[in-house]
Amino acid sequence: MGYNRLTPDLVAELRGMVGEKNVIYGDPEQLEPFSHDETPGKKYRSMPEAVLRPRTAAEISAIMRLANREMVPVTPRGAGSGLSGGAVPAHGGIVLLVDRMNSILELDRENMMITVEPGVVSNEINEYLKEYGLFYAGYPMSMETCFIGGNVAENAGGGKAVKYGVTSRYVLGLEVVLPNGDMVELGGKLLKDVTGYNILQLMVGSEGTLGLFTKIILKLMPLPKCQVDLLCLFETSEAAIKAVPRIITEGGIIPTSIEFMDKLAVKGACDYLNETLPYDKAGAMLLISVDGSDAAQVEKEYEMIGDFCESSGATEVYVADNPTTSERIWKIRRNIPEAYAVKSPRQCGEDIVVPPAKIPEIVAKFADISSRHGILIPCYGHAGDGNLHARIVSDPSWTDDYWHDVLPEILTDIYKLTKSLGGTLSGEHGIGSKRKRYMRTVVSEEYIGLMRGIKNAFDPNKILNPGKIFD
Amino acid sequence: MGYNRLTPDLVAELRGMVGEKNVIYGDPEQLEPFSHDETPGKKYRSMPEAVLRPRTAAEISAIMRLANREMVPVTPRGAGSGLSGGAVPAHGGIVLLVDRMNSILELDRENMMITVEPGVVSNEINEYLKEYGLFYAGYPMSMETCFIGGNVAENAGGGKAVKYGVTSRYVLGLEVVLPNGDMVELGGKLLKDVTGYNILQLMVGSEGTLGLFTKIILKLMPLPKCQVDLLCLFETSEAAIKAVPRIITEGGIIPTSIEFMDKLAVKGACDYLNETLPYDKAGAMLLISVDGSDAAQVEKEYEMIGDFCESSGATEVYVADNPTTSERIWKIRRNIPEAYAVKSPRQCGEDIVVPPAKIPEIVAKFADISSRHGILIPCYGHAGDGNLHARIVSDPSWTDDYWHDVLPEILTDIYKLTKSLGGTLSGEHGIGSKRKRYMRTVVSEEYIGLMRGIKNAFDPNKILNPGKIFD
Repeated sequence: MGYNRLTPDLVAELRGMVGEKNVIYGDPEQLEPFSHDETPGKKYRSMPEAVLRPRTAAEISAIMRLANREMVPVTPRGAGSGLSGGAVPAHGGIVLLVDRMNSILELDRENMMITVEPGVVSNEINEYLKEYGLFYAGYPMSMETCFIGGNVAENAGGGKAVKYGVTSRYVLGLEVVLPNGDMVELGGKLLKDVTGYNILQLMVGSEGTLGLFTKIILKLMPLPKCQVDLLCLFETSEAAIKAVPRIITEGGIIPTSIEFMDKLAVKGACDYLNETLPYDKAGAMLLISVDGSDAAQVEKEYEMIGDFCESSGATEVYVADNPTTSERIWKIRRNIPEAYAVKSPRQCGEDIVVPPAKIPEIVAKFADISSRHGILIPCYGHAGDGNLHARIVSDPSWTDDYWHDVLPEILTDIYKLTKSLGGTLSGEHGIGSKRKRYMRTVVSEEYIGLMRGIKNAFDPNKILNPGKIFD
Repeated sequence: MGYNRLTPDLVAELRGMVGEKNVIYGDPEQLEPFSHDETPGKKYRSMPEAVLRPRTAAEISAIMRLANREMVPVTPRGAGSGLSGGAVPAHGGIVLLVDRMNSILELDRENMMITVEPGVVSNEINEYLKEYGLFYAGYPMSMETCFIGGNVAENAGGGKAVKYGVTSRYVLGLEVVLPNGDMVELGGKLLKDVTGYNILQLMVGSEGTLGLFTKIILKLMPLPKCQVDLLCLFETSEAAIKAVPRIITEGGIIPTSIEFMDKLAVKGACDYLNETLPYDKAGAMLLISVDGSDAAQVEKEYEMIGDFCESSGATEVYVADNPTTSERIWKIRRNIPEAYAVKSPRQCGEDIVVPPAKIPEIVAKFADISSRHGILIPCYGHAGDGNLHARIVSDPSWTDDYWHDVLPEILTDIYKLTKSLGGTLSGEHGIGSKRKRYMRTVVSEEYIGLMRGIKNAFDPNKILNPGKIFD
């Protein structure tokens, strides 16, 4: 597409729309933080020409009309905590930052719904809801920093999806500014709705390429009154994963979380944290949480889960039924990325998803890829969902150039293996610019054709977040 | 669109594709059953020119290529149990019946997923799964006759959606023949997937206008080991509905079902069934079910629910903890449509959805509409979801002509009221041809424009199920 650059005249017009102090322009130092998200590496960076901080849907609508008229690309941005380059202005132009649209607009207790703006930090929703005995069940690992708008745009998953599902299950309504500046309401305070195509759910996970959310209506759940975490140590990944369907089918229990960590992941995190768990016995760990409204029931469930794990070969089962011990074991899980970040400056965080029962097989086959390329691939993630975070960690002696040469080969190996096991590229992090070139390893031309048709119907000028998902 | 009629030559070609005995053509008596679905009234009927019964995706693909080449419309059909005219060939042409594609292809116990063809009767899936301790949690009221393909096409809801959600939550993968005859795989045996736009969920509920499903992968749940039903009698609809959020927020319990029946609905069904419940005291009833894997927990929950209902003004609470009494109370709920069908030959079954807390208000306001037009509007349905089946029952003395004149006014009043309370046209029955003309009372031109853009991208010749949802 032939995009145009912003001129000083256009910037003056934009300043009139959102206010002088809500425009960053002409200062590379101030613009730089908006050239990247949390994707490791410098490859997915691209500088914006201006950053705008609108306060209202009407301002966003005016910006989009200008962008279309002048053929200037617009990239929406939340907290910038994404892991696929989704908020990076790949073609320059405007970054549209929603941090000022950060109000909780309405709690509707009778209907158990909350209406928020996109710039609300996800965790703030739950802090706000605590006193009402309600909670929002989305739970991305970056909950304390990420924005709800970004969660919706990426269809964020996270640690509680086994029981509660991902973001999409809770998005009941959206107010959207379309790429041409028109506004549309999708869904509403409705728990069921088949009035026309499900454009609401098409927006969820569209990575900011089909519209900008200006209001979000979320479904709430009763706040569980108790939670218990189990840390179950196994000798092998296979033994750990085999326990999972037994818990669910034989026990009839849907745990809140079933997090998996392989030997490398556990060892890395324990070393990093100077943790004294007997990790050397553990070939793999499961971190299993149960929650509920009834303490006796939760106790019964975690005891059953412990029994299933032991009879499936768990060598030890630790119970964390208070916040301190709970935090101690979740800390291991959360610190895996950090632990490896200090081992090597060159890393790539993957987010593949396979049928859950295929996890032992893929973990075993990663070992081949790992030794073939001379890299480490610690694996961890959401075993209950088949969503595995494979972290590709280079040999520390490699140069940047060598890393960039060899990484596409490693990724192609990983994705082809994933595809061969019935899996796909991303379970929750998205495609963005990072995984775009690998789309054809897992999806067909027909599928890309349908996406292109939808994009064209919503955004014929390709103004909104160009360069993402597909070309 | 300028559609063409089938010629004998084309019919010969189609016979070559699906086999002589799988084509109905030229015999109005044999074609007539495919001119309608279960929508009451004769208004939404339209005769097909031919009915085809393909067995494979390849046959469907060949049919679609012919239809596109010759500009002949194709309307997919499952069991024909729909309630919005979705399976009616509004522009004639071909009805594509999937009744021969009725195999359960694979049960994957490890991943708790099942792969089925679209012509499998929904209830057969659960009959098949019983011995494995698993179940498919979709539960339309027509479970014993409807096909799973139709459930997916309409995004069927039903009686268990409060706890389990609607069909869409369980559709993990689809093999689809696109309107041009191309095939595409969407999703897979994956519990999470953000690899590109969510075209999978766009297909769910698209009413057979965007593609034909030839394989469906469904997520399964552990089969609950026990279920208890409560029938709670209240003096008013308001009192009944007010109990609902208390159960969920204060009790922290998500019941399986929360079915509502107003006075007219209860009285009609009890009269029809010669039932001896003390319905004359009841201004409204809630039928609440709880299920689970643990009998003690289920007992605790239903006792709590009973207490909440009593403290919210329930005059009586009956407990049904065995199949016989359970069937007795569900029978009342299921027989409401039949009960009114014998009262008047002219009826219209509506399926509006509002924020759940608005149900008492809308039921009260229906009374105004009812007296203004001289009709009955018994209301019943899925209170936990805000999905209300308002059945418009004409005065038996009215003529067909008068009924057809006045019905659009009644419906417009009902839909405008629904919209004013934040609601919309349909929670689970769909738009089809029946509600198409009323779409603009609840959605914007921009929304219709987006739907039109999507349709155009998938089906530029408007070959697949034309005349539905929007023009």
